[in-house]
Amino acid sequence: MQAESSSPLPARPVDLLVAGGIVVTMDSNRRVIADGAIAIAGGRIVAVGPRNEVEATHRARERIDATGRTVIPGLINGHAHVPMTLFRGLADDQDLDDWLQHTIFPAEAMNVDEAFVRAGTRLALAELIRGGVSTVCDMYYFEQAVAEEMASAGLRGLLGQALIDFPAPDSADHATAMACIKRFVDTWQGHALITPAIAPHAPYTVCDENLVKARAFSDHHGCPLVIHLAETRHEVQESRRLKGAPPVAHLAALGVLSEAMVAAHVVWAEEHELDLLLQHGVGVVHNPQSNMKLASGVAPVPAMLQRDLAVGLGTDGSASNNDLSLWEEIDTAAKLHKLISADPKVVSAQEAFEMATIRGARALHLEQQVGSLEVGKRADLAILEMEAINQLPLSSIYSALVYATKASDVLTLVVEGQVLLRDRQLLSLDEPAINAEALAYRHRIVERLGLAPGPLADQN
Amino acid sequence: MQAESSSPLPARPVDLLVAGGIVVTMDSNRRVIADGAIAIAGGRIVAVGPRNEVEATHRARERIDATGRTVIPGLINGHAHVPMTLFRGLADDQDLDDWLQHTIFPAEAMNVDEAFVRAGTRLALAELIRGGVSTVCDMYYFEQAVAEEMASAGLRGLLGQALIDFPAPDSADHATAMACIKRFVDTWQGHALITPAIAPHAPYTVCDENLVKARAFSDHHGCPLVIHLAETRHEVQESRRLKGAPPVAHLAALGVLSEAMVAAHVVWAEEHELDLLLQHGVGVVHNPQSNMKLASGVAPVPAMLQRDLAVGLGTDGSASNNDLSLWEEIDTAAKLHKLISADPKVVSAQEAFEMATIRGARALHLEQQVGSLEVGKRADLAILEMEAINQLPLSSIYSALVYATKASDVLTLVVEGQVLLRDRQLLSLDEPAINAEALAYRHRIVERLGLAPGPLADQN
Repeated sequence: MQAESSSPLPARPVDLLVAGGIVVTMDSNRRVIADGAIAIAGGRIVAVGPRNEVEATHRARERIDATGRTVIPGLINGHAHVPMTLFRGLADDQDLDDWLQHTIFPAEAMNVDEAFVRAGTRLALAELIRGGVSTVCDMYYFEQAVAEEMASAGLRGLLGQALIDFPAPDSADHATAMACIKRFVDTWQGHALITPAIAPHAPYTVCDENLVKARAFSDHHGCPLVIHLAETRHEVQESRRLKGAPPVAHLAALGVLSEAMVAAHVVWAEEHELDLLLQHGVGVVHNPQSNMKLASGVAPVPAMLQRDLAVGLGTDGSASNNDLSLWEEIDTAAKLHKLISADPKVVSAQEAFEMATIRGARALHLEQQVGSLEVGKRADLAILEMEAINQLPLSSIYSALVYATKASDVLTLVVEGQVLLRDRQLLSLDEPAINAEALAYRHRIVERLGLAPGPLADQN
Repeated sequence: MQAESSSPLPARPVDLLVAGGIVVTMDSNRRVIADGAIAIAGGRIVAVGPRNEVEATHRARERIDATGRTVIPGLINGHAHVPMTLFRGLADDQDLDDWLQHTIFPAEAMNVDEAFVRAGTRLALAELIRGGVSTVCDMYYFEQAVAEEMASAGLRGLLGQALIDFPAPDSADHATAMACIKRFVDTWQGHALITPAIAPHAPYTVCDENLVKARAFSDHHGCPLVIHLAETRHEVQESRRLKGAPPVAHLAALGVLSEAMVAAHVVWAEEHELDLLLQHGVGVVHNPQSNMKLASGVAPVPAMLQRDLAVGLGTDGSASNNDLSLWEEIDTAAKLHKLISADPKVVSAQEAFEMATIRGARALHLEQQVGSLEVGKRADLAILEMEAINQLPLSSIYSALVYATKASDVLTLVVEGQVLLRDRQLLSLDEPAINAEALAYRHRIVERLGLAPGPLADQN
């Protein structure tokens, strides 16, 4: 058994004991415990081990029986735009430039305000919690509202307040945007759940000067910097044409790459650019389904893993994907790279699951806090109702987790020691109210964008 | 309203009325009815239309309220090996030839008997019904047992008894196999739910002479012929080397292609071979996730759709995929071809949903019976608990169905007018017994194959 110290009798009092079931720790030994238990106190894991040992040495205020279940670290969704859940299905089957310039940006200008962001965030939080995600990295406007909603619901967030070189829904110019970011970071730094960040949208929407300022801000405030990077071939072509280098190399030359950076997509990075990302300690987030749906391309994940780059998985926003199920990203990541590499041994089930947990934590620079079930880490875990036959894997438990487990198999979610979902019931959110509010917003979006209402949009 | 005849008062008595909700008919006009209803009598659809009209003219013995739900045709899983559900996770992250020759075939020789097939089929049926699949095209051994289990559970099947040029679990030689197939076809032809078929495994496991005999059998008995075709690049190379032509062209030259054929995979067909498939009226089944996971390649689906080929979707067996969720195949099909074509407009949400319904029915040559909600067709439908915001689509109901709906959203399944699933409860299967039996088989497989038991297989 692994414990903070040898526990003398009497048993140590703890807040919560999750006891029984298969515990998939994702620790450095990738230990899987057949009948395990986890003791939690003060929001942290204080013991992980065989059930009989942990139960003998801890006395819990609350006990969750996980017998016959599987217990995993809470999943890490490394890239999302949670308020955009209200825009789900707004524009499908379009290419990214059309989609962004002609649909998303105008729809945002017409609809996005603080109340919209709150409603969209609450809707997304319900889906994330139900799906076993305990940490989400977000980038959007009014991120102060996202942070308040997320902290109130009890989910962990690395939240980037967006910076973009045109008038945004929450700031008319660069100075206002930077002031807003500073206020946001000052407000949330040190919070147990929320890590505030600066989020320059992308190298093609933020000028070099402002990118350099963003890096300086990140250094000065010790906060992460979240960015979209090398997502499309078009972006790379334009970067070469306008700046003389592909985006990653350009950011390296500008001095913007750093250990605080979380770069989403990185589809079109060249080999030498992957080396640059590694050298600078940049975290990368792979969004396989979004990249497929927008026909952006396939990130060179096998080459990233070969370098032991910190690469996680993300869903991207629901306007592009169109859901927040990280399980589908895990499954797709494992399958997609086999296809593209023409090698079914590439990105094993275990590697895919690592990207959603411990490697995903590294991508967000949060690996000291989350991503595995280990003593001293934040108590973020999910309990799964896996089919009995998957509990008896023929080859590997990771196969069952990656290829056969769904978001709907998540029974319980604990974040920072707090139970947010119990037996599929949301404890920190009012689901009927959230759904009613979301529906009202959808009616408003339909009206403002002059769309045909409801299913009749499909009528011939 | 569409009805068999003008209904005079008093209201026509029917068995079942599904009333309310958005009805996605998939009829030739792709009609979507905002507040619809479907009347069912004798296992067939006798009326589809606006709720108030259908309710006014029909008096039902039983009524299912679908208000606030979405009603769709039951999904069509065009390619599966249902008993292999017991082998889920047996061997992942291997290439197809290794997987088949060194793992699956030996595991089958060691484990597969009639009782295994029954247990595996029941387990698969539970998953299929829960996932909204009303018709499945299967190919395996002991298909008589599959048919009995499927008919007993009330699911519709196009079931192919396998033919293969080496001793199989249910027949030692070709003559025994052909006799078994004849008995199987004679037993089931004319059954309301089961369409029996002959299933030569593939051109690389069945010799030309036996393929020609299988075609003659199919012609003589008027039964479908199910086959794996052009699945891997290796298969095509070997076909060229040994037979002087790629597999589809070779079968055309042999005279084996026909309107009764259902060909699974067809990943590596050349343009002229797609023309041959079209000319001969062959149905094709695309299995995107299996083809990705085994790194087999990507079927030329956009070129198939351009020809209006009858192409459906399948999960393949759970030993390769590793689940029976057709929803993930629909979602993957829509996304994968965008990526491969580098065009996000390719395989629209509507086209993907068609492949799982009406076009999938054409692929199985069952389009006169199933695949859409139309008067005269078999009463096969699913009711979905879609999120309220997806019920108010911003662009298209097909987007919500394809990109955001999951197997777990299926509430109710009706096949041939019989309710097999109601509010997520299986009515025709004993789920605890099925799971206990499956677990016992898994223990036996672990023992026979000398695998490390349970999660400890992952221990370092």
